[in-house]
Amino acid sequence: MCRFLAYQGVPVFLEEFVSSPCHSLVHQSIHATEAKTGTNGDGFGLGWYGDRPEPGLYREIRPAWSDENLLSIARQVRSALFFAHVRAATGTASTRANCHPFSHGRWLFMHNGQIGGYAKVKRKLEALIPDALYGARTGTTDSEALFLIALSRIEAGMDPMTAMASALADAAALMAEASVREPLRFAAALSDGETIHAFRWSSDAKPPTLYHCEQADHVVIASEPVDERRDCWRAVPANACVVARGGRVEIRTLAVGMPLAA
Amino acid sequence: MCRFLAYQGVPVFLEEFVSSPCHSLVHQSIHATEAKTGTNGDGFGLGWYGDRPEPGLYREIRPAWSDENLLSIARQVRSALFFAHVRAATGTASTRANCHPFSHGRWLFMHNGQIGGYAKVKRKLEALIPDALYGARTGTTDSEALFLIALSRIEAGMDPMTAMASALADAAALMAEASVREPLRFAAALSDGETIHAFRWSSDAKPPTLYHCEQADHVVIASEPVDERRDCWRAVPANACVVARGGRVEIRTLAVGMPLAA
Amino acid sequence: MCRFLAYQGVPVFLEEFVSSPCHSLVHQSIHATEAKTGTNGDGFGLGWYGDRPEPGLYREIRPAWSDENLLSIARQVRSALFFAHVRAATGTASTRANCHPFSHGRWLFMHNGQIGGYAKVKRKLEALIPDALYGARTGTTDSEALFLIALSRIEAGMDPMTAMASALADAAALMAEASVREPLRFAAALSDGETIHAFRWSSDAKPPTLYHCEQADHVVIASEPVDERRDCWRAVPANACVVARGGRVEIRTLAVGMPLAA
Amino acid sequence: MCRFLAYQGVPVFLEEFVSSPCHSLVHQSIHATEAKTGTNGDGFGLGWYGDRPEPGLYREIRPAWSDENLLSIARQVRSALFFAHVRAATGTASTRANCHPFSHGRWLFMHNGQIGGYAKVKRKLEALIPDALYGARTGTTDSEALFLIALSRIEAGMDPMTAMASALADAAALMAEASVREPLRFAAALSDGETIHAFRWSSDAKPPTLYHCEQADHVVIASEPVDERRDCWRAVPANACVVARGGRVEIRTLAVGMPLAA
Repeated sequence: MCRFLAYQGVPVFLEEFVSSPCHSLVHQSIHATEAKTGTNGDGFGLGWYGDRPEPGLYREIRPAWSDENLLSIARQVRSALFFAHVRAATGTASTRANCHPFSHGRWLFMHNGQIGGYAKVKRKLEALIPDALYGARTGTTDSEALFLIALSRIEAGMDPMTAMASALADAAALMAEASVREPLRFAAALSDGETIHAFRWSSDAKPPTLYHCEQADHVVIASEPVDERRDCWRAVPANACVVARGGRVEIRTLAVGMPLAA
Repeated sequence: MCRFLAYQGVPVFLEEFVSSPCHSLVHQSIHATEAKTGTNGDGFGLGWYGDRPEPGLYREIRPAWSDENLLSIARQVRSALFFAHVRAATGTASTRANCHPFSHGRWLFMHNGQIGGYAKVKRKLEALIPDALYGARTGTTDSEALFLIALSRIEAGMDPMTAMASALADAAALMAEASVREPLRFAAALSDGETIHAFRWSSDAKPPTLYHCEQADHVVIASEPVDERRDCWRAVPANACVVARGGRVEIRTLAVGMPLAA
Repeated sequence: MCRFLAYQGVPVFLEEFVSSPCHSLVHQSIHATEAKTGTNGDGFGLGWYGDRPEPGLYREIRPAWSDENLLSIARQVRSALFFAHVRAATGTASTRANCHPFSHGRWLFMHNGQIGGYAKVKRKLEALIPDALYGARTGTTDSEALFLIALSRIEAGMDPMTAMASALADAAALMAEASVREPLRFAAALSDGETIHAFRWSSDAKPPTLYHCEQADHVVIASEPVDERRDCWRAVPANACVVARGGRVEIRTLAVGMPLAA
Repeated sequence: MCRFLAYQGVPVFLEEFVSSPCHSLVHQSIHATEAKTGTNGDGFGLGWYGDRPEPGLYREIRPAWSDENLLSIARQVRSALFFAHVRAATGTASTRANCHPFSHGRWLFMHNGQIGGYAKVKRKLEALIPDALYGARTGTTDSEALFLIALSRIEAGMDPMTAMASALADAAALMAEASVREPLRFAAALSDGETIHAFRWSSDAKPPTLYHCEQADHVVIASEPVDERRDCWRAVPANACVVARGGRVEIRTLAVGMPLAA
């Protein structure tokens, strides 16, 4: 399990959410309170949109709490849409390529959760990534595989929510086929640089935590509230998709239906 | 604060204490139970004596819990005297040169604790390292400085316990002179490849935890018991020095008296 | 392209070949003289057999020339059969999982060379790894894929030379099918802890360099001679397999024939 | 020896000089042509001024040529004044704290060269850093020591060129006192965010190479020309200081006279 944060709104220094608040994402890397484990020390990543359509990426395998580069970049860089993620690995190696967020073209993606029995379905899951995107797979995680599957469907014309729901349906179908009993748990965020789609879903009744906080000029979506504005932070309902655009938030029901690939 | 382990006895694979037991040192790197913080993820180190007078060293800045090399080396290497340490940094950078154990010639040293107000006394503490050993300082920690000060006195003919006690007395005197109110806390181990001197001391009444376990053919000294042999593990008294040699343990009173350097 | 070294004979400290000689493997990491590039700074690895059937592994993404751990381990560890490798990446990420040697069970493998047009054949090459070994793929290189394909055939009863020749034939066939014009170049070593099979082959007339040196009590196989014993070092012929066992060397012709998988 | 680059002018993406040109600084990290060694693979650093008085820093111990983060940050970040440096270590450890540029407050500093016999003068050189700045020393290099000595004199009211000249004079005096015969070689750049002072000096007749290129809207100062604009790049004279401000360059004579500290 991991912890993450996504911001959309007026440009701010990344540190305002990543490292400065009392329960910032950096603080959550060593003292998470709502995750299975309090330590998310298996690397981290920043992805931010600046003056180009493609985001910048800084990913490292060190724990976030001891990385001077992270603090300096978060202090120096301003962005109107950015992702930050601290990782607690669930079986795959600590490499930069396995750190979130993942990017491809102008897209960013990050995930907190796990595909149960991943080793049993990995091969078939990877088979759902079309050839055109298979070369873009640089790591070995379940998360990156889900991203590339969903992305291929977006590129084929599907809207992001439907694309992700169908990728989840396919993954769940593969798990069932392989008699996997562990759940598929999924909190995630996806962006093209303008809109954020955040997801909270699981195949059992225990999706990872996810909150959103809507203010006059920005929206934050995070695994755990980063500050004391208790009147602002609201839990995202289970099986929902949060669409953040122009500093506004819309909550939609996420229906993960029949597998597409079956 | 950190966690550590020292072994002396019949040759064993390092993993028997470093990574295999239920509460092995690797387990303590993420779930320490008797330290100020449960996470000791700011690097680690192994030091072991083999076929040479000088020990081998493997030190890394990654968390111990995710390091494949550590597991493989601990599984492959056998030793009759070895040190292992997991670090929770207290202000200095995450670099290999700041990871314990430190070595010089045939000596190994590791430390769990902190010199209060180190920034205020660092310069004067370093001044106590004689020229001949100053070039051997490759990192920036208080621990390495204490090691080199004590070592210089051992090389000048002092016995290890007296040398360390006098280094602590000098450090405490510098702290007093600089009006530092934080305590000097010190659990540590020092070896020349044959004998281990382990120390438990503090300037207040709260020295870091330290245990020893004496068996027929070996002695283990550790910050926390690594296994369920509750009848074996005993707390080292405060202000004591444990001398382990030939698989036997002797407990001596550690009197930290007047500063030597004053 | 990379540089590597394999040793079989009386137990020696690894440093006798890895770091001490004038043109040791560590020296080749920054001053290789017979490779496409003089710098092999994209990580390195040691694999050695000790008291267990499975080898120990130390792999790192730092350049070999600046790694204190490598020097210390090579100075401390003695082995009768070991591999060492310095990497010059050819497109895949600098991660430990992409550093050679690779190991699985009691097997070790390392490679110097490249599958031309790997991106075009990667997917089909991976499809040749049977399910039982697919989970053992922890990195993303062409080398690891070849290893797992060959290993699956060894486990199915093929001898190592035939297994590797058939894996090469299959890779070459996939390249032809994908209209890849770049060559497949391959110098490699494979061991089960008792015998080393080293290979020198290419689909064009330019296989990577490979030498062997046979002495009274040991055999060394290396990309470049590590010392001045010019009377000892001999070039391995192109399209050959060197079998080293019991300190003796046998040279066989490596016939890469019809693809097995076609 | 190392290679570096400093830019002052209209805001540009860092990649325009750091990674895109044919002989960019990243290219120089593996194929430097005018340095003692072609490989500068012992880490690197970026320092850039953005919306704050203090610069941002990204420093890593990996070789620049294989660092995806470096490419992404250089592609995403725009700055009107930035430093970039690739390191070839000369005896001190590969740690981030030993990578250039160094920063303190709004100041940035980087260096290419070496204080001959550093081990013999290290202690006395460090003694020239006043207490107020000694705590800012996070690494162990000669370069950082020179930076902090010069900075203390700037803070005491000296202009940057005089401060640096006096630091060099003091270092040279310590070397003479210690009977060091190796030279002090020094190419460096220092900035407060508005002006760059670059230096080329040595105690023998062989200062490291340094060039400047002045265009309509920017100035670049670099160890080696990064592109083919041969009409633009000019060698900085030996024993000179280049002052770059407002896109203009002024060359002054650097007189390293009597030691200040003597």
